[in-house]
Amino acid sequence: MREPLRLSSADNPRVKAVVRLRKHRDRRESGLFVAEGMREVGRALAAGLWMEELFFCATILGRSWGELLRELPDIQDKAAHAAAFDVPPGLLEKMTYCEKPEGLVAVFQQPRWELETLAERATALRKDCWPTDLWVVAAGTEKPGNLGAMVRSADAAGAWGVFAADANVDAFNPNAIRASTAAVFVVPVISAPSGDILRFLKNRNARIIVATPEATLDYTSVDLAGPVALVIGAEDRGVDALWREAAGTTGCVTIPMKGVAVDSLNASNAAAIMLFEATRQRRQK
Amino acid sequence: MREPLRLSSADNPRVKAVVRLRKHRDRRESGLFVAEGMREVGRALAAGLWMEELFFCATILGRSWGELLRELPDIQDKAAHAAAFDVPPGLLEKMTYCEKPEGLVAVFQQPRWELETLAERATALRKDCWPTDLWVVAAGTEKPGNLGAMVRSADAAGAWGVFAADANVDAFNPNAIRASTAAVFVVPVISAPSGDILRFLKNRNARIIVATPEATLDYTSVDLAGPVALVIGAEDRGVDALWREAAGTTGCVTIPMKGVAVDSLNASNAAAIMLFEATRQRRQK
Repeated sequence: MREPLRLSSADNPRVKAVVRLRKHRDRRESGLFVAEGMREVGRALAAGLWMEELFFCATILGRSWGELLRELPDIQDKAAHAAAFDVPPGLLEKMTYCEKPEGLVAVFQQPRWELETLAERATALRKDCWPTDLWVVAAGTEKPGNLGAMVRSADAAGAWGVFAADANVDAFNPNAIRASTAAVFVVPVISAPSGDILRFLKNRNARIIVATPEATLDYTSVDLAGPVALVIGAEDRGVDALWREAAGTTGCVTIPMKGVAVDSLNASNAAAIMLFEATRQRRQK
Repeated sequence: MREPLRLSSADNPRVKAVVRLRKHRDRRESGLFVAEGMREVGRALAAGLWMEELFFCATILGRSWGELLRELPDIQDKAAHAAAFDVPPGLLEKMTYCEKPEGLVAVFQQPRWELETLAERATALRKDCWPTDLWVVAAGTEKPGNLGAMVRSADAAGAWGVFAADANVDAFNPNAIRASTAAVFVVPVISAPSGDILRFLKNRNARIIVATPEATLDYTSVDLAGPVALVIGAEDRGVDALWREAAGTTGCVTIPMKGVAVDSLNASNAAAIMLFEATRQRRQK
């Protein structure tokens, strides 16, 4: 990798492009995202993602360029093609979303998962996990942190992938990346309309299981060891009729609660409970 | 309740006191906390907490004082003793922690739970739930949002209470309140040193169950229907030796994971998984 070029103007189009990537629309249109800090950048490289640009500030990072390369050799090994820039502290702070900038910001290409090729690729990824489909559908999720936490739990449970159905958040929002502890770099996360996802799942013969407080069927009494997709709704609005109809009365389940103050769970906690009930049943088989 | 007094100076000691309550230390020393917005203030009143002061801004709230009282009659019914103040928008914004201030801020007394009297009070609160003890110990939790989410799940699972052991966060941090969806107003949350909590749990004959990745025992193979305390550690540091020793080899359990990218769960997700495995076992009994 070449020595980093000095870059000091806030008007530089590269700097502006990084700041714009905070917006969902810009990430969607460009297919890019921003990773921040040693750990996140390191994990994106380890996941094999393609780095486009690297911005670093020796003062904030507390490391010289040479020290950075020694500590994160993947920068040279896997991202020798990327453009590197040395930026002053004030400018790096402008580029970072994180409250405590670490002095390292990199632009990567998002992994591309297409519904058309997902089945093959995800099965290959998960062949050491479960023999039958295990998917999560985050339906209408509104908080990026919740989506990220769901992807983390999905990975931990060995799920094949996560669908963000009709969601106005994406997995490469900085808060989603952080909450996922970089699982979004590895786990397939597919943003698509509910109808397309449902068609995909029907082709897979995956049973649709919707967690909803209105149901009466206990989630632990339903077979989650067979091929399933676990649908978790947004906390306020619940799950769309489309999904509830696809699940039918034998696929709509409830997590029995005894709350004095609350009658619902955080969406990522509901997903974790459902996912690990599925793993419990699969281990018993 | 008297008509609210007009208050417009940022130097007013009442205003400064509200801002100071963002600090853990000020909340601990005063025993007070701040609730923000219609829903949170309404839930604190519904939970029977004692309101000290109410600050409102008709412009931001989009309601007159009369309309506020009609919509939240508990203000008159349960907080007639409180001092009410009418403040201009700029000042209310200074007092609020929330990014989108709703125009309503209230100072309440924290519910007081003491280890000495906890057993009686919690049993009474939960007599309709489980016949045997079900506690959560958040050991060294560092994120208020995680603590709040754990309290929410604990309530939903019918747990008797949550201990924040050696924690440097408290349940009345604004982010903890929000993540708990006000469950912290109702569920006993006790901040105390680990040693004191352990003594309390031993007196209750509650079995200590520690979730830790180093354990080999599957959490679903352990009896969680008897009296138990589920100990969840901080994500980075894990659980202190004190707790692991108290649990012993038959009380240290693992949640089996199959992650490609991650090998741990968000603390609140781990708590939810353990809590709802306990409720599953209890329903089966």
